[in-house]
Amino acid sequence: MAFRKVKMGMVGGGQGAFIGEVHRLAAALDNQVELVCGAFSSDYENTKTTGAALGLSEERLYTSYKEMMVAESKLPANERMDFVSIVTPNHLHYPVAVAALEAGFHVLSDKPATATSDEARQLDAIVESTGLLFGLTHTYLGYPMIWQARHLVQTGALGKVRKVYVEYPQGWLSKDEESGGSKQAAWRTDPAKSGISGCMGDIGTHAHNMAEFVSCEKVTELCSELSTFVKGRRLDDDGAALLRFENGATGVLMASQVCAGEENNLKVRVYGEKGGLEWQQEDENSLVVKWLEQPKQTYKAGAGNIGLCDIASNMCRTPGGHPEGYLEAFANLYRNFAKAITAGESKQATGVPGIKDGVRGMAFVDAIVESSSADSVWTKIKI
Amino acid sequence: MAFRKVKMGMVGGGQGAFIGEVHRLAAALDNQVELVCGAFSSDYENTKTTGAALGLSEERLYTSYKEMMVAESKLPANERMDFVSIVTPNHLHYPVAVAALEAGFHVLSDKPATATSDEARQLDAIVESTGLLFGLTHTYLGYPMIWQARHLVQTGALGKVRKVYVEYPQGWLSKDEESGGSKQAAWRTDPAKSGISGCMGDIGTHAHNMAEFVSCEKVTELCSELSTFVKGRRLDDDGAALLRFENGATGVLMASQVCAGEENNLKVRVYGEKGGLEWQQEDENSLVVKWLEQPKQTYKAGAGNIGLCDIASNMCRTPGGHPEGYLEAFANLYRNFAKAITAGESKQATGVPGIKDGVRGMAFVDAIVESSSADSVWTKIKI
Amino acid sequence: MAFRKVKMGMVGGGQGAFIGEVHRLAAALDNQVELVCGAFSSDYENTKTTGAALGLSEERLYTSYKEMMVAESKLPANERMDFVSIVTPNHLHYPVAVAALEAGFHVLSDKPATATSDEARQLDAIVESTGLLFGLTHTYLGYPMIWQARHLVQTGALGKVRKVYVEYPQGWLSKDEESGGSKQAAWRTDPAKSGISGCMGDIGTHAHNMAEFVSCEKVTELCSELSTFVKGRRLDDDGAALLRFENGATGVLMASQVCAGEENNLKVRVYGEKGGLEWQQEDENSLVVKWLEQPKQTYKAGAGNIGLCDIASNMCRTPGGHPEGYLEAFANLYRNFAKAITAGESKQATGVPGIKDGVRGMAFVDAIVESSSADSVWTKIKI
Amino acid sequence: MAFRKVKMGMVGGGQGAFIGEVHRLAAALDNQVELVCGAFSSDYENTKTTGAALGLSEERLYTSYKEMMVAESKLPANERMDFVSIVTPNHLHYPVAVAALEAGFHVLSDKPATATSDEARQLDAIVESTGLLFGLTHTYLGYPMIWQARHLVQTGALGKVRKVYVEYPQGWLSKDEESGGSKQAAWRTDPAKSGISGCMGDIGTHAHNMAEFVSCEKVTELCSELSTFVKGRRLDDDGAALLRFENGATGVLMASQVCAGEENNLKVRVYGEKGGLEWQQEDENSLVVKWLEQPKQTYKAGAGNIGLCDIASNMCRTPGGHPEGYLEAFANLYRNFAKAITAGESKQATGVPGIKDGVRGMAFVDAIVESSSADSVWTKIKI
Repeated sequence: MAFRKVKMGMVGGGQGAFIGEVHRLAAALDNQVELVCGAFSSDYENTKTTGAALGLSEERLYTSYKEMMVAESKLPANERMDFVSIVTPNHLHYPVAVAALEAGFHVLSDKPATATSDEARQLDAIVESTGLLFGLTHTYLGYPMIWQARHLVQTGALGKVRKVYVEYPQGWLSKDEESGGSKQAAWRTDPAKSGISGCMGDIGTHAHNMAEFVSCEKVTELCSELSTFVKGRRLDDDGAALLRFENGATGVLMASQVCAGEENNLKVRVYGEKGGLEWQQEDENSLVVKWLEQPKQTYKAGAGNIGLCDIASNMCRTPGGHPEGYLEAFANLYRNFAKAITAGESKQATGVPGIKDGVRGMAFVDAIVESSSADSVWTKIKI
Repeated sequence: MAFRKVKMGMVGGGQGAFIGEVHRLAAALDNQVELVCGAFSSDYENTKTTGAALGLSEERLYTSYKEMMVAESKLPANERMDFVSIVTPNHLHYPVAVAALEAGFHVLSDKPATATSDEARQLDAIVESTGLLFGLTHTYLGYPMIWQARHLVQTGALGKVRKVYVEYPQGWLSKDEESGGSKQAAWRTDPAKSGISGCMGDIGTHAHNMAEFVSCEKVTELCSELSTFVKGRRLDDDGAALLRFENGATGVLMASQVCAGEENNLKVRVYGEKGGLEWQQEDENSLVVKWLEQPKQTYKAGAGNIGLCDIASNMCRTPGGHPEGYLEAFANLYRNFAKAITAGESKQATGVPGIKDGVRGMAFVDAIVESSSADSVWTKIKI
Repeated sequence: MAFRKVKMGMVGGGQGAFIGEVHRLAAALDNQVELVCGAFSSDYENTKTTGAALGLSEERLYTSYKEMMVAESKLPANERMDFVSIVTPNHLHYPVAVAALEAGFHVLSDKPATATSDEARQLDAIVESTGLLFGLTHTYLGYPMIWQARHLVQTGALGKVRKVYVEYPQGWLSKDEESGGSKQAAWRTDPAKSGISGCMGDIGTHAHNMAEFVSCEKVTELCSELSTFVKGRRLDDDGAALLRFENGATGVLMASQVCAGEENNLKVRVYGEKGGLEWQQEDENSLVVKWLEQPKQTYKAGAGNIGLCDIASNMCRTPGGHPEGYLEAFANLYRNFAKAITAGESKQATGVPGIKDGVRGMAFVDAIVESSSADSVWTKIKI
Repeated sequence: MAFRKVKMGMVGGGQGAFIGEVHRLAAALDNQVELVCGAFSSDYENTKTTGAALGLSEERLYTSYKEMMVAESKLPANERMDFVSIVTPNHLHYPVAVAALEAGFHVLSDKPATATSDEARQLDAIVESTGLLFGLTHTYLGYPMIWQARHLVQTGALGKVRKVYVEYPQGWLSKDEESGGSKQAAWRTDPAKSGISGCMGDIGTHAHNMAEFVSCEKVTELCSELSTFVKGRRLDDDGAALLRFENGATGVLMASQVCAGEENNLKVRVYGEKGGLEWQQEDENSLVVKWLEQPKQTYKAGAGNIGLCDIASNMCRTPGGHPEGYLEAFANLYRNFAKAITAGESKQATGVPGIKDGVRGMAFVDAIVESSSADSVWTKIKI
């Protein structure tokens, strides 16, 4: 069979944006995906400049995502895009995804899936009805050691899970950056673009997703307090929650954007009856396992590395000791998504979080905001 | 002035106990304290064996702490003990301390100060009225880097404190050790000896004390959930709480004895407007400071080490790079207590936690148990 | 100006090879380079399979590098490759590079530059006479923190350099892998393909290059002992050398492929009069600086990170805390090389090691083998 | 049997000295040793002040070590000292040790054993003829994880040893401290007091001793270069050597006192056919083992900790997670020495380095100086 790169269109990611470029680097890495068109900005000049710098021909640069869906649909099957990568602020995730799906294109969207829970549930229904693929770039699930961690829990090596601690401290919003000209800060602290939560929507969702993925357990209810430390800020920039899991485990989730000095210090710990595991995003290639009855072990990422499960091993491009990082993790999601398209998978791409995860994430945000507003009363996560 | 070691009597710490021996090692290290008598156990045979192994003469080995107070009082001033070290299970802390103070002896007690809040407040009144010294061995305050951490907060280097995370995961009670013959586990999980809380009374109090000491802020209220994971256990073996501090900071406290694989992984983090600091008991000689606007720094313990405040520097016995640990931390409390006796200090020894800290600790335990019982309602810490 | 990707042809890197795929991933990452043709293997079937999997059209797949040079030369300027990436075993580096340069193509070659010192010097002359670009993928110079380290030395922050320690322990040749079917092990231990040294040619050259780059000083002479630990192996698999530098500094270089359990634990340390720095490839995003008269600092990689020099900062694609690794380091060399082509640079591409480094590397190998053969007599590195 | 502390006399360790106080703290820790007399300084006023601060009675403070030997010999057996602790500068180790042994006292001496090789050999003969105990405080052998490391090698877990790397970088002599009033620096850089080597005699001997102890192999010959970086200094302050071991293993030893920013960063690594181990003095309670065919393990110190050999476990005073450090390591040597006296051992105390180690250490210093003087020619270590 002749090799064929999967064709990608992109909405968002014009100059001044951050995550769009990350998506493009990730998509490029493995030579499996080709960017063919874009509506990078609501400002068409920005779209043109961005597109030119990327080597796209001008006829594939669109003034709006709507125009893009229409125009691409009309192209011959072997020319038009296969999927849309959505890298806009949160409030546009839903309308763009709907437009793409309805035009027959698969969707790979930045997280959170939508701006509200209602939208997430509707999107779920649309994905269901179209049968098209919907992927959500919860980047941190692209790290091989996360799959190794999950593998240890799933195979029972740690025993029944009792405790889950997950934390994501950042410090970049320690000051009023939104008034200082940071485009990133501006939309993330604007309820109209970000949704009902700032910190929890942005990084709390990563932490929640990670906790459930690694522990193989679902959070059922929580008790939380959110705070806004920077004067004038319109959304929470910090918070924490006590967690209860379906199997009786309990846990704690902490996320903050005002932990001055921190970068992206996401960390997850899961303890079972026989031992506990620990992973940190800033030391991404190590997985520490502390055992009750044997010395501590450290698994290391690396293609073919000893002790790794097949999935984790296959997610590594280089042998051990040559670190792979954030872009490779991101690229793993793109590679899996491209593979799913080529393989003709439907709705949920193997190895990529999907709309069901998106629905869970939005329900988590609802619950954490609701609990905090009600003086930290225990609040169920309603799916 | 002629050198004179301070004379110590000990209650508790017979064979089979753990913390008594630690106290003795700590007391011995600096050659400032001399053990002269003891009532090591309710079993006099144990007391005799213990005393003989320590080289004590039999007439200074007592059948009970009451007998010890009476007998020692009758000895000439230059022979009798100067202070009593209390290393019994929790429920005996109060009666022994009262007996010692009333007999005119200073007291250095293991924590928690007492088994109940009421006892703690009464003890406070007795210390106040006798004017004698009362010290509490919150060991972790004996580490030099903790004082350096506090120094950075106190001098404003971190800016106004916003966040405090403190955690103390242990794993040694992951199984039903109390039925398995562990004397340590047995009394710690027995409400009659331990008080109303297991994990929180034992190590949660350390975490609470540490959080307040380093942040220079008081916890005013909390919202908590305690759990008992091991079947049949009569007290909590795990828990967490959201915290509110007097100055508006918020925080999280986690303590557990069922984090399988953990040893004594006490860790405290404090973030202010300009940066955050981080200290772990298992890496005791380093203090990491992450700054918002300069590269990360690591202070290292060591006598005369650059960048250390005087107190921290003076707590080190050796130049940098020759690690000092838990026993040295403990010994710092003993050294300070001996110095306070020699200097004729009253009620509160410089550099040693006192009865006020004990009262706060017991009030913390009350609040965390009360909140957990009331479905995690926010509960004030009542001093 | 219209965007134009730089066109790459590749020699070597067929199925079963390792480093070729790494080069392709690195070249792809930044969307600046396009693979257009290849002679991936001496086995044309392999070349065809490899090319097909990469989506190349069959007319750009060549039976030999010689055919490739001829055929590509005849293509229109805007179609033919701009440069040749050489990823063969060592003995082919020289003939392929010469053929490419003589046909008018720039060359980016895996290291070492050639199989012998003579070849390296001749290649230097050819680069000089053609004026074409020649780059050498000493990957580890693609890490941003290496440039930050060099910056600290260059700006005098550490004072005059006194000591340089560099080490590269690996463990993958602890057993007789070459007899066990490993293609990688087979050619690396074969003098006909690898040159006069195994371990030192392969990874000792990385260590030597790193030592000189970071310290800003040249090694002038050395005293060494090489060993072969695995029975039957035909080249050294281990060695160490004492080093003397031009400015009077001294140092030690260690490299081994039989340090069982190690992966790619390259580490460099440079000490000056005022402080020392330390960097490890497996913790690539941190640079530790220990000062004589201030607390230890840790610089962290990240676009725009505080304290980084411009070059280091610009080598990062993501803000701090999102780790970049080996492929990004490699990609930095490709990106710089592509930029140099576009900018019309000659001979030496900015930010990419060149033929002069290649000559130094080969002279280092000569000296280390010579010294070891002469019972570790001090031996000058002859450029 | 009645408990009886072992009685210690001390030579050296007056005010202004460093290591004497460390010995006293170490001796005190376990309540097994009692300081009863001293000749702390050649300045009797210093001796009196020191003795008074230690609570010694004046009649047990001597004007010279000779006087001490004579006077103590005349005391009743149950009053006089059992052994002499020698904590003087190097040149006095020999005469004091000889005087003590000839007067019938056991000796525990700071390292190196003597100032010259000849003295060491003579001392060996005297120990042999008297049958008294002679111990050498190679402190770092008092760390439990060093014995665990040796245990792994001895039991064959790592396979045949191939490589040994040992290093001891310090930075405290980066400047001309000896002219600046540092008493420590003054004698250590004075050939009359220190012997023929500065850095190698002081800390190179520690490194050499550690390398042989952990690897269970003897260094047979070496090839070295020593340097003096600080102008005017009279002895080496830095050096390195290539090593050959009896079993065919090779290695590298590095020691320096001008690695600005370093404290006491002693590190040893031993690689066998199946894996390698790694221990650092500044992270003293961890022993990392990297395996060829299983995930990395980390053993942690702690009484009763899983995976530890009995000796290592028994060297710990507290359960895991409560760090023990340098003083506890030192105290382990004192405790073992006291136990050997009580048990009536002869010549070599169990668990304490002895005169044979001292002879090896001095021979190592001779060889490393000789090789360096002869342009790094391979030089045998002559015992």
